Amino acid sequence: MRVGLDVGGTKTEVVAVGSDGTIAARLRTPTGWGPDAVTRTIIDAVRSLGTQAGVDLSRVRSVGVGMPGQVEPGTTRVTHAVNLGVDSLDIARAVEPALGVAVRVENDVKAAAVGAYALHGASGTMAYLNLGTGIAAGIVTDGALWRGSRGAAGEVGHISVDPNGPLCRCGQRGCIEAFAGGGAIAARWARPSALPIRDVFDAADAGDEAAVRLRGSLASGVAAAVRVLVLTVDADTVVLGGGVTALGDRLLGDVVRELRASAEASAFMSSLDLESRVELLPAGSAAAALGAALVGAETAPV
Amino acid sequence: MRVGLDVGGTKTEVVAVGSDGTIAARLRTPTGWGPDAVTRTIIDAVRSLGTQAGVDLSRVRSVGVGMPGQVEPGTTRVTHAVNLGVDSLDIARAVEPALGVAVRVENDVKAAAVGAYALHGASGTMAYLNLGTGIAAGIVTDGALWRGSRGAAGEVGHISVDPNGPLCRCGQRGCIEAFAGGGAIAARWARPSALPIRDVFDAADAGDEAAVRLRGSLASGVAAAVRVLVLTVDADTVVLGGGVTALGDRLLGDVVRELRASAEASAFMSSLDLESRVELLPAGSAAAALGAALVGAETAPV
Repeated sequence: MRVGLDVGGTKTEVVAVGSDGTIAARLRTPTGWGPDAVTRTIIDAVRSLGTQAGVDLSRVRSVGVGMPGQVEPGTTRVTHAVNLGVDSLDIARAVEPALGVAVRVENDVKAAAVGAYALHGASGTMAYLNLGTGIAAGIVTDGALWRGSRGAAGEVGHISVDPNGPLCRCGQRGCIEAFAGGGAIAARWARPSALPIRDVFDAADAGDEAAVRLRGSLASGVAAAVRVLVLTVDADTVVLGGGVTALGDRLLGDVVRELRASAEASAFMSSLDLESRVELLPAGSAAAALGAALVGAETAPV
Repeated sequence: MRVGLDVGGTKTEVVAVGSDGTIAARLRTPTGWGPDAVTRTIIDAVRSLGTQAGVDLSRVRSVGVGMPGQVEPGTTRVTHAVNLGVDSLDIARAVEPALGVAVRVENDVKAAAVGAYALHGASGTMAYLNLGTGIAAGIVTDGALWRGSRGAAGEVGHISVDPNGPLCRCGQRGCIEAFAGGGAIAARWARPSALPIRDVFDAADAGDEAAVRLRGSLASGVAAAVRVLVLTVDADTVVLGGGVTALGDRLLGDVVRELRASAEASAFMSSLDLESRVELLPAGSAAAALGAALVGAETAPV
């Protein structure tokens, strides 16, 4: 039995995965704020599998933790997890004594990529493109995560696609994230809202010109990221996930139209069949927690 | 003994590689035009290793051929090798009967990437960025070439980095190749010259404004390709090769300045240390032919 956690800014999801790769149990709990509370959240979430879902914790061979921050390859330390109030924390060191099993840590987008690959039954190369406050990708080929050695793998959100585009929080101009990141769009929408991206789409449907422009910016940014992923690693499938994809087919339709338009202008782009490579991660998917469990299993064989 | 060939538009280079990976012999010959002459060129080049370089051809276990065209993964057929007058040709079928050993075929840029990785003694991920008439990359990680399954791997030249940029021969606007491809720059320079890129640099040094703009366009396009390769696959090293790199440090200096400028604007980009990742392939390197020999060895064990 493998356990995987997706530690998000508001909630933490934990799954128990059987040796056949199927999810045997799945629970959610609120995420605490700051290093101590996050440590507590992880420990309690794993234990809740025993108390609330009847998982025999003595059979757990590994715990994998997906974290919204930077995880240096080969380490278990997360840094810059700003949404959790964690500047730097060695997760394994914090939770292994209480859990008594090997713990591995991975960036949450990379973990979700591994999980999406497994759920998709994918072969070849799959890119998971996470559309949240920021934009980043995880690349999986033949089941193996592309980690790189210096922490930049999948940072496609900070590729500039327009030297005259909007200023990105990273300091560059015209980054894909500055066009299509949820944070950038909410800031440009600048109207109070619990769900700014949904408001933008609703307002655009009602004919609001500023909203129509923002919706176009989102679609063109996502399409640019898809092109980058195909023209660099020849991703067979680009799976879109993350909070922004709650818009479902309203988002996917725009992205596909954008890809189709570029293919009409270019026989070369048309030959790549981009629109058929793009898919949405199903709503409510446990990809991130499942992927964390699979990552945890990598270095802790049964 | 492994043999590798780099079949170029004007000349073909052939090498014999020993079991320790060193180049035992190296010859050059003019390349013929059209399928029959290209077939003849390959056969004669291999045989010349015996007649001119004293290689014992009975000890050759495999032949790898790098071709300037599309090679569908897993096949030995090259298509769209326009510089050779070859629309479609199954190289192995054409030359194996005469050579009597297993022949494998790879795109020349991908072959050069494999060779550059071996020559560099690289570890981790290396991207080889070929700056010729067009722009394309080969990505090698832990010694293995990233092929993708649908032929788009490394086609970074056709990533658009400016929606208002120059029209690319592919039909899109603002492709990296439209800024920095040797063909695009020669077309925009539009003055008769045997070496248009060198003329552009000389004229720019002399203060010609159009030349200064073109030189800037070349550097910014190459820098954009470097950023794409680092922000997607976290390439530890980006090796620049191809005809345009005959400019040597005159080109590299401009590219490094361009990367430095973007790093100054962005702490994130600065943390990636882009300028230290970029290198030039040494002039006269046998990377492409060596890489072809290594590719040939992959499916034809001793």
